[in-house]
Amino acid sequence: MNEALFTVNNLWILVATVLVFIMHLGFSMLESGFVQKKNVVNILFKNCMIIAIGLLTYYMMGFNLMYPGSDFEGGFFGFAGFGIASPDGVAGAIEYADGAYGYWADFIFQAMFAATCATIVSGAVAERIKLNSFLIFAAIFVAIAYPITGMWKWGGGWLDAAGFYDFAGSTIVHAVGGWAALAAVIVLGPRKGKYTDKGIKAIPGHSMPLAAMGVFLLWFGWFGFNGGSVLSADPVLVGLVFVTTSLAAAGGAVGAYFASWTLFKSHDLSMVLNGILGGLVGITAGADLMGPGEAIIIGLIAGAIIPFSVVFFDKMKIDDPVGATSVHLVCGIWGTLAVGIFGSSAGLSQLWVQLYGTLAMGAFAFVFAFALMYLLKVTIGIRVSEEEEKTGLDIAEHDMSAYQELKQTSFNYSVK
Amino acid sequence: MNEALFTVNNLWILVATVLVFIMHLGFSMLESGFVQKKNVVNILFKNCMIIAIGLLTYYMMGFNLMYPGSDFEGGFFGFAGFGIASPDGVAGAIEYADGAYGYWADFIFQAMFAATCATIVSGAVAERIKLNSFLIFAAIFVAIAYPITGMWKWGGGWLDAAGFYDFAGSTIVHAVGGWAALAAVIVLGPRKGKYTDKGIKAIPGHSMPLAAMGVFLLWFGWFGFNGGSVLSADPVLVGLVFVTTSLAAAGGAVGAYFASWTLFKSHDLSMVLNGILGGLVGITAGADLMGPGEAIIIGLIAGAIIPFSVVFFDKMKIDDPVGATSVHLVCGIWGTLAVGIFGSSAGLSQLWVQLYGTLAMGAFAFVFAFALMYLLKVTIGIRVSEEEEKTGLDIAEHDMSAYQELKQTSFNYSVK
Amino acid sequence: MNEALFTVNNLWILVATVLVFIMHLGFSMLESGFVQKKNVVNILFKNCMIIAIGLLTYYMMGFNLMYPGSDFEGGFFGFAGFGIASPDGVAGAIEYADGAYGYWADFIFQAMFAATCATIVSGAVAERIKLNSFLIFAAIFVAIAYPITGMWKWGGGWLDAAGFYDFAGSTIVHAVGGWAALAAVIVLGPRKGKYTDKGIKAIPGHSMPLAAMGVFLLWFGWFGFNGGSVLSADPVLVGLVFVTTSLAAAGGAVGAYFASWTLFKSHDLSMVLNGILGGLVGITAGADLMGPGEAIIIGLIAGAIIPFSVVFFDKMKIDDPVGATSVHLVCGIWGTLAVGIFGSSAGLSQLWVQLYGTLAMGAFAFVFAFALMYLLKVTIGIRVSEEEEKTGLDIAEHDMSAYQELKQTSFNYSVK
Repeated sequence: MNEALFTVNNLWILVATVLVFIMHLGFSMLESGFVQKKNVVNILFKNCMIIAIGLLTYYMMGFNLMYPGSDFEGGFFGFAGFGIASPDGVAGAIEYADGAYGYWADFIFQAMFAATCATIVSGAVAERIKLNSFLIFAAIFVAIAYPITGMWKWGGGWLDAAGFYDFAGSTIVHAVGGWAALAAVIVLGPRKGKYTDKGIKAIPGHSMPLAAMGVFLLWFGWFGFNGGSVLSADPVLVGLVFVTTSLAAAGGAVGAYFASWTLFKSHDLSMVLNGILGGLVGITAGADLMGPGEAIIIGLIAGAIIPFSVVFFDKMKIDDPVGATSVHLVCGIWGTLAVGIFGSSAGLSQLWVQLYGTLAMGAFAFVFAFALMYLLKVTIGIRVSEEEEKTGLDIAEHDMSAYQELKQTSFNYSVK
Repeated sequence: MNEALFTVNNLWILVATVLVFIMHLGFSMLESGFVQKKNVVNILFKNCMIIAIGLLTYYMMGFNLMYPGSDFEGGFFGFAGFGIASPDGVAGAIEYADGAYGYWADFIFQAMFAATCATIVSGAVAERIKLNSFLIFAAIFVAIAYPITGMWKWGGGWLDAAGFYDFAGSTIVHAVGGWAALAAVIVLGPRKGKYTDKGIKAIPGHSMPLAAMGVFLLWFGWFGFNGGSVLSADPVLVGLVFVTTSLAAAGGAVGAYFASWTLFKSHDLSMVLNGILGGLVGITAGADLMGPGEAIIIGLIAGAIIPFSVVFFDKMKIDDPVGATSVHLVCGIWGTLAVGIFGSSAGLSQLWVQLYGTLAMGAFAFVFAFALMYLLKVTIGIRVSEEEEKTGLDIAEHDMSAYQELKQTSFNYSVK
Repeated sequence: MNEALFTVNNLWILVATVLVFIMHLGFSMLESGFVQKKNVVNILFKNCMIIAIGLLTYYMMGFNLMYPGSDFEGGFFGFAGFGIASPDGVAGAIEYADGAYGYWADFIFQAMFAATCATIVSGAVAERIKLNSFLIFAAIFVAIAYPITGMWKWGGGWLDAAGFYDFAGSTIVHAVGGWAALAAVIVLGPRKGKYTDKGIKAIPGHSMPLAAMGVFLLWFGWFGFNGGSVLSADPVLVGLVFVTTSLAAAGGAVGAYFASWTLFKSHDLSMVLNGILGGLVGITAGADLMGPGEAIIIGLIAGAIIPFSVVFFDKMKIDDPVGATSVHLVCGIWGTLAVGIFGSSAGLSQLWVQLYGTLAMGAFAFVFAFALMYLLKVTIGIRVSEEEEKTGLDIAEHDMSAYQELKQTSFNYSVK
């Protein structure tokens, strides 16, 4: 490959990395907006730590768990050792340059993906989980569980050999994160007062501008998430992926608009916001396989699913303050199956492998997350006290408030 | 053209697309910040739907109205059929690769532009327009009116043949959107209580951080809006466009600083914010033709225009809560004329064609928007009731509030 | 160099420029979030004007002071004249194309850097400085002081000849800005009521979501700040810089987490946010020289420094509302020294040149800023009145409030 073409391919992976990075701001703002005012510092703190923990654990072991190496084929588990290239690996990085991008670009792009998976959980368990328990959960999940299922497909594992298709991670990132969120919520239980004898209490988010900003930033980042997953700057494929990604998001907005009107007879902003995200999650598995019309249909359906799914989880007393399970789990499964239904890949045998692929990864992620969360529950505890939940985690865990109007005691530098 | 050069040119169009996309977040935040607290959800909802509607209608017909094809020359109207390339068009997309970028990149870059045009209107009519009436207006305007005038120049129509110059859309996007906004505001009327016997009532925006964020994001996106309009990654031209765009924005800030001090004897943040946008709109028509010094002058004048224009429209009882007509219409015209005054293109004959070009497009856009808005007014109605306007559109149209402090009744999943 | 490779290198400098630009939004949000509600408009106004002033002065003289030309070697001062390339320079820009990027890209990338340096000061002097005095200070500092010290290394001056290493500006941008901030704060004095007989009063910021948003945006922009400083799209080097930059930021978060827990026994969000920034500032001098493990260590130490440094400055009664001196000055020095301690560059002689390089630039910046601020103090005055400080600068200087709840008198277009 000539130097210029290699350079432009590599550059796109790096630019896509930057775009995926900003999804962490998107998640932070979305989750902040959807929680109550008294729990905003806590969400922001968690999101700052998750990206840090995600990058560090992926450096230490995740990358080598997920990509055990070129000799590895078709297995369930592989590991290429701790750490990534040592300083002399800089030279190694050049030799690696036979592919479409360099070693460092490969690592950092994948590392940004890894951290998003843990972030999905943080919204679902918001407003009642203990900070440090969550951080330990996130560290272990992103260091071990995410790379193992990811390897099954992207690292050349058994599901890759079986013909499972998941272009940019409807299952590998989103449904896996969504299953972990579901498991965590079940072990943790709902917020106090959410489900009462008198019905389901509405606990509205404290700032719709923050939530909307989060969704726009996530869409923005998704151009890197899906576009970068082409793994080169191929003009036709990256262009197509941009078109399908955008049209699916647009379809998601419209689908959620009509479905929420049908269900609630109101123009529900939260539903449209989550509908956009649902469309994006839905197209992710097949963004490079669909035509524009198919992308719109996939998005429309994903968006229409959202209000029904949110109602369903609430009826099951699965308390997810931001709708992460509906967006990432339900639409992630939908998008994975859509690969077997639409586009050039459509076919019953493909649909079948899509189904057992997503269920296999989901089963692993759910069981892993459930067991880990349960273990934390019976050891250090995972839930703040009722008193702390009522006061809010910002004061209880951080001794500060998100906004100046409320009591704030931080910035009080008495050394203890 | 060699593969690597084609790939980098195409990549820049795609990256520019991502930048233009985030302008929709910029508009959302700017408009949210400039409206009252009780109308924030409504603005956010509209902006989510506009980008969705813009992309979908541009896919369905806008793109083929605006670019009727290579055989088309010098006419007033052309249409290449519904929809864009079908799945077999993926192969077609490769053949298209004789140009500087691929078919998909071309479509998605132009589609992002289209949606911005409708967004310009949404700020001007904020705080009193009916949601669904506005969405119907936006859909029809972006599907039909914007592509027709756009075609006159960018699609190879009669104004292109006449020598009209509009590099990235001072007229084609901004003034056209601004004329539509003006027409819509005239049909709609001012907010209740804005213009009284006792004078003009100040109705300040609810959040300056959101407004400022919007302006920075718009400037950020403008690097893609203008830079991408080079239609290749040409190092000299894209570099020059970055320089002129930035310096014009800087000039706009300084121009508005001094003009608003002269007029109001205060350091008015709203004016400086709109001054930056005015500078950006002003340079857009000739960003590739000007030297740095000329860009600064164009921006200074655009910024200085803003406070005078805002006062003028208020005296005319044209109620535009965000100043969209001043920014996009007035500075759009100024920028279009500036192409005939400054730079290598300067000359009386050029100035003349710039004038009738911008007036021709403006006349079409104004009449189209006026007629459409009037038609909606006499059929389904375009204005919320006085009671609803007083309560705020968030409760009236969406049954929720933007912030937790206020009464919020959403997230109440009783199926109706 | 072939055309495609030149084009992709140049494109990366331009994309990096866009990323550095958005750091100005990052600073705006960070500083807005960390100040009190009554001073938010003032911070936003200053940040809008600083980027404008920075670009314009850099165009007028800064660029030619900082890069006196290829004939210049090893001196203390040089100047290539006022203004940049005239319109006929467009042709000149093509000839310049022997390097890795064009003339315009070079100018605009450097211009964005210049403006960040002045922004660092604005946070430290927030909540009590007179608007126009600050703007004059910023204009002179960015027009003269920053380019002179910058030239010593990046323009081929005496410190470059001496072997001083500062990849992307731990000293040249951050410590220089930090020294200027320190000087300004000393001349200006602390906010009223901050240091009393009863101890140090906590004055918490008014919005943690804005502050967190600022930090994420700064990290986002830092990919351009450090990545663009490779001055080409070199796949190995840009990739490595992305890895070291990200891992240092992650290390900074973790370092601040543990250090602030140790010091304050609380999970302090402000500290973790500044810890991330500290990690980023720390890696900036050697981002292209370190391996991933070294980057983590540099970041961990930088993050751990933050809480101690914040306490230290508070004990010295240096009142810096946003922690700019801790982040940019202290971690900037640390990062500069780290080049002599870690990586392939490590060694006592390198450490020595790093030390006197950072001290030499720091001494110049401190003395220049101190003298300039003092001159302003004894002439036009630099501090608002006690009454104005109590009321808040938003009303006092801008006659408006950041949020609608408070009294707002702007948008009142009576021409004076």
